[in-house]
Amino acid sequence: MSALKYDLEATCGEARAGTLHTPHGSVPTPAFMPVGTYGTVKGMTPEEVRGIGGSIVLSNTMHLWVRPGDTAIQQLGGLHRFMGWDGPILTDSGGYQVFSLKKLARVTEEGVRFRTPKDGEYRMLSPEVCVSIQENLGVDMAMAFDECIEWPADRERVGRSTERTTRWLRRCLDARRAPERTALLGIVQGGFFPDLRAAHADELSAMNLDGYAIGGLSVGEPTDELLGMVEVVAPRLPANKVRYLMGVGYPIDIVEAVMRGVDLFDCVLPTRNARNGQVFSSQGRLNVKHARFKLDPGPLDETCPCYTCRHFSRAYLRHLYLSDELLGHRLLTLHNLAYYLGLMQRLRAAVIAGPDALAALRAEAVLASQPPGAFN
Amino acid sequence: MSALKYDLEATCGEARAGTLHTPHGSVPTPAFMPVGTYGTVKGMTPEEVRGIGGSIVLSNTMHLWVRPGDTAIQQLGGLHRFMGWDGPILTDSGGYQVFSLKKLARVTEEGVRFRTPKDGEYRMLSPEVCVSIQENLGVDMAMAFDECIEWPADRERVGRSTERTTRWLRRCLDARRAPERTALLGIVQGGFFPDLRAAHADELSAMNLDGYAIGGLSVGEPTDELLGMVEVVAPRLPANKVRYLMGVGYPIDIVEAVMRGVDLFDCVLPTRNARNGQVFSSQGRLNVKHARFKLDPGPLDETCPCYTCRHFSRAYLRHLYLSDELLGHRLLTLHNLAYYLGLMQRLRAAVIAGPDALAALRAEAVLASQPPGAFN
Repeated sequence: MSALKYDLEATCGEARAGTLHTPHGSVPTPAFMPVGTYGTVKGMTPEEVRGIGGSIVLSNTMHLWVRPGDTAIQQLGGLHRFMGWDGPILTDSGGYQVFSLKKLARVTEEGVRFRTPKDGEYRMLSPEVCVSIQENLGVDMAMAFDECIEWPADRERVGRSTERTTRWLRRCLDARRAPERTALLGIVQGGFFPDLRAAHADELSAMNLDGYAIGGLSVGEPTDELLGMVEVVAPRLPANKVRYLMGVGYPIDIVEAVMRGVDLFDCVLPTRNARNGQVFSSQGRLNVKHARFKLDPGPLDETCPCYTCRHFSRAYLRHLYLSDELLGHRLLTLHNLAYYLGLMQRLRAAVIAGPDALAALRAEAVLASQPPGAFN
Repeated sequence: MSALKYDLEATCGEARAGTLHTPHGSVPTPAFMPVGTYGTVKGMTPEEVRGIGGSIVLSNTMHLWVRPGDTAIQQLGGLHRFMGWDGPILTDSGGYQVFSLKKLARVTEEGVRFRTPKDGEYRMLSPEVCVSIQENLGVDMAMAFDECIEWPADRERVGRSTERTTRWLRRCLDARRAPERTALLGIVQGGFFPDLRAAHADELSAMNLDGYAIGGLSVGEPTDELLGMVEVVAPRLPANKVRYLMGVGYPIDIVEAVMRGVDLFDCVLPTRNARNGQVFSSQGRLNVKHARFKLDPGPLDETCPCYTCRHFSRAYLRHLYLSDELLGHRLLTLHNLAYYLGLMQRLRAAVIAGPDALAALRAEAVLASQPPGAFN
């Protein structure tokens, strides 16, 4: 009995609208997961995330393992209770974080031995440990432990790595103790080799997993390479399982990936850019620091219904940002997430409405993804 | 026609309960003003300040003058609209800030010439400039420009300085252009010399000002010296005008000052201590960093009805604090302000209820003001 159930409700080409059922409630898809690394979406309360349409959040296994520790969170009743979020939670595997330690990490067939930059302590992250941590956290969706390799990498290296990812996935499956409570998603690898991607997608599809992620993308490659791989993988995955593209991206990337059959996304852009003063809007990105906003009484985005846009001017938000005021980071984060979550709602409606609606939304997303220029 | 009206509603000894009417609404007193230096109570929305019982906020003339500038705020419709707070606002005079620059400031009869640490620009703050800035901001209550001197200071120096403060007050009064919109409060000085304090209180009382502040206290002196001066000054001020004790203090200091006839307070303690992890509670201050909270599922304060205490554990708040997460600063600030504002509401009720209620609240405030120890 899987902890996850995905109901497909409408399609438009490869694009899908559906509902993902989890032990902590349902997620209308396509969906975006705000990132809450340390068990908090930066600066936001759970009510606020919910209030702007968030239905699922992502948290980071590796970070919570180091601080405050998965067993501490377990003793406190699990991650949902700990962070006060009663909706679904997905955690990453921690793999991406340990591999990005590079010289501080040593990879073997057993797993990855590394020193945490925080306390210098040696730790071993393996498929078994990875599953155990996520089950201790009590999340709805755990990610399998996969090998993350650099880009570009040659075919032989990618092939060997993908095989190891599959072996690690099998060990993850064997290690599970609470499959009815915590689903396990496998991660399709294969680098930028269409045939390796296709073969891995087929191999994992045959394993009848709870859900599927597309990994190893958004690692520095051009966007069309990324979308090319999504195009290869997504249609080969089972239609009755959720599909998650990890770490993507700008609004246009999300729309393009939805049009290729992806259901679930996460990205630090809306939260991280907010901390840098960068704002998403239907008219393109803008940087709130710009001097031209000094006396601007208008909202960040005329068309945005969020709390920030209903109450505060660009001039005030610029002032808060330049004064390094907490409220500024908070209000920009709220707005950016509201933009992303609103986009997902409209994207779902467009998939249901049909090709014209989807094309119109794609055009908006192109505009919305434009970098801040001299005039915004 | 004064912009302020104070209605005295009940007394208990020297303690007063009343209502202060301003152009932006009424303030039940005794009242505490959360500090919003740069036009924002750190990390909090106006709705949240209102939601925990805040009815008036304090902002800083000097900071807003330098950034974004009083004329910019004026062009944007005034400070209320700029910061989205539709209740009363009081601004300090900026005097305290320029005098604390010490070697960067030169004091003459004209005013204070100084270099702003932020941009190295020379500026001159005088009674006329001070009033002009506060009227440009459009606040409900402006503070007169007074001379702030060091503690301890000898009698002759205090006497000369107090005379200058009176001359500056007269210049402030002459400089007003919008007295019906922005009230002007005079500041009683006189150092720690009871006769100088009494004489200055009498002199200012005779001037029939909009309201009165007691300044030059909480500058490093022992608490009983501070309360001694309040005891001298407060009863000499007109009963039909509001009385504001600047920059005070811990819960017990506030209760003691109310019992000596003060109506209005401001202090950075609840907001600044929150950023250091220090929490006010009915059982004494505690530091959320302490290792003993690592697995503590209880709220900061069992008796507190605030959002933080209703939703989050000490363990989670400790984790947020150690992870330097914005949400942690925000939730601790909310709690500390809720404690202060709740104390003021109960203090007002106690003044109306009578001596026993006031004595009981004083006992709580003694406990609540205790520093964090080994066990909290």
